[in-house]
Amino acid sequence: MIVVMNTNLGEEVVQKVVEKLQKNGYQTHESKGIEKILIGAVGGEKSPYIKQAIEVMEGVEKVISVLVPYKLASREFKQENTVIRLGDISLGGEQIQVMAGPCAVESREQLLEIATLIKESGVRILRGGAYKPRTSPYTFQGLEEKGLEYLAEAREKTGLYIVTEVMDTRKVELVAQYADILQIGTRNIQNFPLLTEVAKSNKPVLLKRGLSSTIEEWIMAAEYIMLNGNHQVILCERGIRSFDSAYSRNVLDLSAVPILKGLTHLPVIVDPSHGTGKWRLVEPMARAAVAVGADGLIIEVHAHPEEAVCDGPQCLKPQKFMNLLQEVKKIAGVMGRTL
Amino acid sequence: MIVVMNTNLGEEVVQKVVEKLQKNGYQTHESKGIEKILIGAVGGEKSPYIKQAIEVMEGVEKVISVLVPYKLASREFKQENTVIRLGDISLGGEQIQVMAGPCAVESREQLLEIATLIKESGVRILRGGAYKPRTSPYTFQGLEEKGLEYLAEAREKTGLYIVTEVMDTRKVELVAQYADILQIGTRNIQNFPLLTEVAKSNKPVLLKRGLSSTIEEWIMAAEYIMLNGNHQVILCERGIRSFDSAYSRNVLDLSAVPILKGLTHLPVIVDPSHGTGKWRLVEPMARAAVAVGADGLIIEVHAHPEEAVCDGPQCLKPQKFMNLLQEVKKIAGVMGRTL
Amino acid sequence: MIVVMNTNLGEEVVQKVVEKLQKNGYQTHESKGIEKILIGAVGGEKSPYIKQAIEVMEGVEKVISVLVPYKLASREFKQENTVIRLGDISLGGEQIQVMAGPCAVESREQLLEIATLIKESGVRILRGGAYKPRTSPYTFQGLEEKGLEYLAEAREKTGLYIVTEVMDTRKVELVAQYADILQIGTRNIQNFPLLTEVAKSNKPVLLKRGLSSTIEEWIMAAEYIMLNGNHQVILCERGIRSFDSAYSRNVLDLSAVPILKGLTHLPVIVDPSHGTGKWRLVEPMARAAVAVGADGLIIEVHAHPEEAVCDGPQCLKPQKFMNLLQEVKKIAGVMGRTL
Amino acid sequence: MIVVMNTNLGEEVVQKVVEKLQKNGYQTHESKGIEKILIGAVGGEKSPYIKQAIEVMEGVEKVISVLVPYKLASREFKQENTVIRLGDISLGGEQIQVMAGPCAVESREQLLEIATLIKESGVRILRGGAYKPRTSPYTFQGLEEKGLEYLAEAREKTGLYIVTEVMDTRKVELVAQYADILQIGTRNIQNFPLLTEVAKSNKPVLLKRGLSSTIEEWIMAAEYIMLNGNHQVILCERGIRSFDSAYSRNVLDLSAVPILKGLTHLPVIVDPSHGTGKWRLVEPMARAAVAVGADGLIIEVHAHPEEAVCDGPQCLKPQKFMNLLQEVKKIAGVMGRTL
Repeated sequence: MIVVMNTNLGEEVVQKVVEKLQKNGYQTHESKGIEKILIGAVGGEKSPYIKQAIEVMEGVEKVISVLVPYKLASREFKQENTVIRLGDISLGGEQIQVMAGPCAVESREQLLEIATLIKESGVRILRGGAYKPRTSPYTFQGLEEKGLEYLAEAREKTGLYIVTEVMDTRKVELVAQYADILQIGTRNIQNFPLLTEVAKSNKPVLLKRGLSSTIEEWIMAAEYIMLNGNHQVILCERGIRSFDSAYSRNVLDLSAVPILKGLTHLPVIVDPSHGTGKWRLVEPMARAAVAVGADGLIIEVHAHPEEAVCDGPQCLKPQKFMNLLQEVKKIAGVMGRTL
Repeated sequence: MIVVMNTNLGEEVVQKVVEKLQKNGYQTHESKGIEKILIGAVGGEKSPYIKQAIEVMEGVEKVISVLVPYKLASREFKQENTVIRLGDISLGGEQIQVMAGPCAVESREQLLEIATLIKESGVRILRGGAYKPRTSPYTFQGLEEKGLEYLAEAREKTGLYIVTEVMDTRKVELVAQYADILQIGTRNIQNFPLLTEVAKSNKPVLLKRGLSSTIEEWIMAAEYIMLNGNHQVILCERGIRSFDSAYSRNVLDLSAVPILKGLTHLPVIVDPSHGTGKWRLVEPMARAAVAVGADGLIIEVHAHPEEAVCDGPQCLKPQKFMNLLQEVKKIAGVMGRTL
Repeated sequence: MIVVMNTNLGEEVVQKVVEKLQKNGYQTHESKGIEKILIGAVGGEKSPYIKQAIEVMEGVEKVISVLVPYKLASREFKQENTVIRLGDISLGGEQIQVMAGPCAVESREQLLEIATLIKESGVRILRGGAYKPRTSPYTFQGLEEKGLEYLAEAREKTGLYIVTEVMDTRKVELVAQYADILQIGTRNIQNFPLLTEVAKSNKPVLLKRGLSSTIEEWIMAAEYIMLNGNHQVILCERGIRSFDSAYSRNVLDLSAVPILKGLTHLPVIVDPSHGTGKWRLVEPMARAAVAVGADGLIIEVHAHPEEAVCDGPQCLKPQKFMNLLQEVKKIAGVMGRTL
Repeated sequence: MIVVMNTNLGEEVVQKVVEKLQKNGYQTHESKGIEKILIGAVGGEKSPYIKQAIEVMEGVEKVISVLVPYKLASREFKQENTVIRLGDISLGGEQIQVMAGPCAVESREQLLEIATLIKESGVRILRGGAYKPRTSPYTFQGLEEKGLEYLAEAREKTGLYIVTEVMDTRKVELVAQYADILQIGTRNIQNFPLLTEVAKSNKPVLLKRGLSSTIEEWIMAAEYIMLNGNHQVILCERGIRSFDSAYSRNVLDLSAVPILKGLTHLPVIVDPSHGTGKWRLVEPMARAAVAVGADGLIIEVHAHPEEAVCDGPQCLKPQKFMNLLQEVKKIAGVMGRTL
């Protein structure tokens, strides 16, 4: 920790800060300049309160933390990449995993039709929402448990693994009975009771970035899950909110991938469908995501986007999705990875 | 609804769109320009799917909604201001209500000390968190039910009304037993199961704006609560995330107050403590909030900010809070309101 | 300056950094923790290169500056408020100054009509653009020198002082012949040759915040003008770009006023017209601006907004402007200021 | 154009709007719903004033433009890609062009050393600033004309083409004598006199996106140059400002590439150095830029980043730059392009 103080209040004021630091177990070193005094403080008890307690003391201009606030998620804690096993496949290893499917589970027929097409494409993970977080209470909110049942049936018929969202602490146990991967949506990145609850499930968790989450807040959300006992966290970049949504619903922040791969050991995947909101942008951004080093992609595919109950404009038709897979495969190849 | 189409794909493509609209109950009128065709469509069934279904049709460039997506919260639905009664006081009427107290309930003594001071200041509502949403799992998470009990004791001793946050659907019933107003925090603005659950409580709900909520998303969150049966919603501006947090943690968007007062009939209050994150900015922004037309303020006050377990740097000491009340009272006076 | 280093690269790597700092005149103090080493460095030559040179050295994680990067604009350099004299009035003192007028000078008649109305309202400064920065090359770009002549005529007829924008280094001398205050528009906040050129004019400079300027970048722009010899700089908050422009074109950041009053000694005014883009929001935000401590307002007024060649929707009609002045005057009164 | 009106003000109010539109040459069609009336208006004179004039009329809620505001830059105006010739190379064609060099020209020796290394790498365009837009007036502002002379010498010695920034209308002629491509920096995207001036030079213009430019504002800046007679505009994505700059200085918005390739016919390149501000992120983002479809890259390379007078932390050392070229070449290959 570094404490920056003004010089114009006298030595006594500085000594009070030094004493408080030392009482909390810190060793301190002062550097006195003309305008500022810097107090370097190391080795303290890492009390979460001490930083704030110092911040409000007289003469203190600011307090700067130098340690990252997360541990279990950090590369320093675990050097090697986390590889998450899912039956016969793995996520975070050499193979890039694609998750594909409709935004929402709309009906048994719709889901089985698209699941079959996805299975035939070689993709191994099916996405589809049974519980849908919708901005408007007047729009389709999901088939709920019925939707989960259809997902389970699709898994049985195709052998695809299932990723689906859970929004309510009271439903985690239920959703975990059906899903292979639990998704935490962008609006729940800081729903801490929910993070704590999915941690208890022993299922891998797909943690989407919040619309305006900083990199650090996002890792801290992963840390909540890990600290509560579940280390199988997959980070998913899905676009951040910017000042311009005229041509892309969000800004897909691909630099987050190499940044996260540097700071953490967790797998990082990219959602170019929500990240752009426009089907025409999904393929180029999927190519870029793999080129930047993503471990996977999650993509909305719908057999009949014009009948989709949500997010139709960002859904790919099956044929376009097949093209995407071919293009992405070429990029994966030169990156030394398989698809 | 307005559908904008390209002219270069022929009449047949346009007719398909017109037919789809008419089949869904819309009357349509076409305006054909050289580059674009505009189809005005009115009177349809307001199906939430129709907009998206049209959006993905061939030749359609965009679909523009002209009706606001909310009803119950709108000024058009209810012309007069909603005034929320709370025992012997009311919120949204002539009197500006101040809610004050510590960020978190830390101990029985801390709470009773500050509650007494607040009571003496003439303020009628006590704030204090028993459940704390914290970015880090390593920091203080609140005293939970014990904190609620202390709040109830403070109410009994002082007659202050209590506003406190609820974060988990499973705790709504419990918190509602203790609180006079349920607070939905900024991170839960789109936690739809929680919005639905607090709607069932029959307690007024203080709905904080999300860090990057648009005005419309925020009103839609209120609409969730209202559509589920609870019309006592208080909107609280608390700062939005911007590109510069060096001197103010967030940007307090005071224009939201007159905008919301125009679009909705709900009371609107302002949180200058979280909105700035710096105690020096709290008083000037509180004055501005009242000058712009806010119905209330929510302010962090702590008897010993240097010992606060959270948000110390934005807490006012009691003396500074008394000064703030005096200054704000003068502004309220020239605005024709009381404090 | 503080240098944060990793501990895992050995003492030699640390010593290289210490030597480089000392060679540049710094005194250094090291604090060695388990994960990080902190080097406090004070008293160096303030070479602008040294920070970057250290930043790229082996083992260096980050370098944190503790001194603000500006001098002349800082409160530490000059304690008392800068008050700018303009003939018989002053800006930055007890009296709040209002600048009012049309977005653009459109014709001699238009300008003289509105100038007369403004004069009658008691306001002393007339705004109006002769050179207009327009997003589109197809829209009205201003009357140029003819517009300046009309402004001069309006001054002669009414005694109002004139503030008008200059956009081109080649026009500074010309505009300065006509204007009492030179305006640097939001798009030119970092047009450094223009800042340098207006510095030579000896006219007060109204420096609008850029659409996404940080507080520090904005003060640095003022520093450019001051370092080049002109200390008469007026800072003008005019709204920043955010993620939501549906109901307000920009977000008027009123917290910038008390922040700037703390960091600098320069006068700070607010532009609620551009800051919101909607005439209905201008009056409430003008009240709030005065309540938060602004030294002035700049407001668009047009006798016939429906005929305005630019920014009609944010222009006030004269009658509404008179009402605004009355309301603002009341707030000014309780703030201990005059209008 | 579409005019949305309220229904509650009576027929007369609507007729006034219809008449005004028709007087301005529009054909109109009305769609009357219960809450809103839609007036589709096509074929008018495209007066820039008419939209605003309608917007402020009684009963008008909003006016929506349906035509894009630019012409010359649009794909509709020119279907085929613009390919810019530069001696024996071209930009916007099959070959991806890389521009490389130091942030600033610091000395003759520095420039010749790096130019030789770049030449040997196979790259054909040298970047380097002689005029530097710096946030602080206390930092290095460039060698100015001397820098231009060194650039010319480097071109003569190596055969590299030169791209360099111009910041001042008064220097355009001078810089154009030395440069092969004129760069408009991010801070000058809406410096309209400068855009107009570089249009007269007949040199290709590299137009960097502003820190918070929307896609449309950026294209409009290109339109300024094109309307003034210079159609050789290269668009350069260089990162936008976001709420998180802790790990990346800006957010490099790669979706801008396919968006711009759809809307315009101009070449689009990417600057991963400024876009991230961190050398470790430059290579992965360069790969992604090519995968997304960029026509070129502009990259900062410095033989001795620790001595660079600006932007050292984002500069690649020559060896790392060679690696980048190899990796990017592989991606270019599978994209069907050469490097």
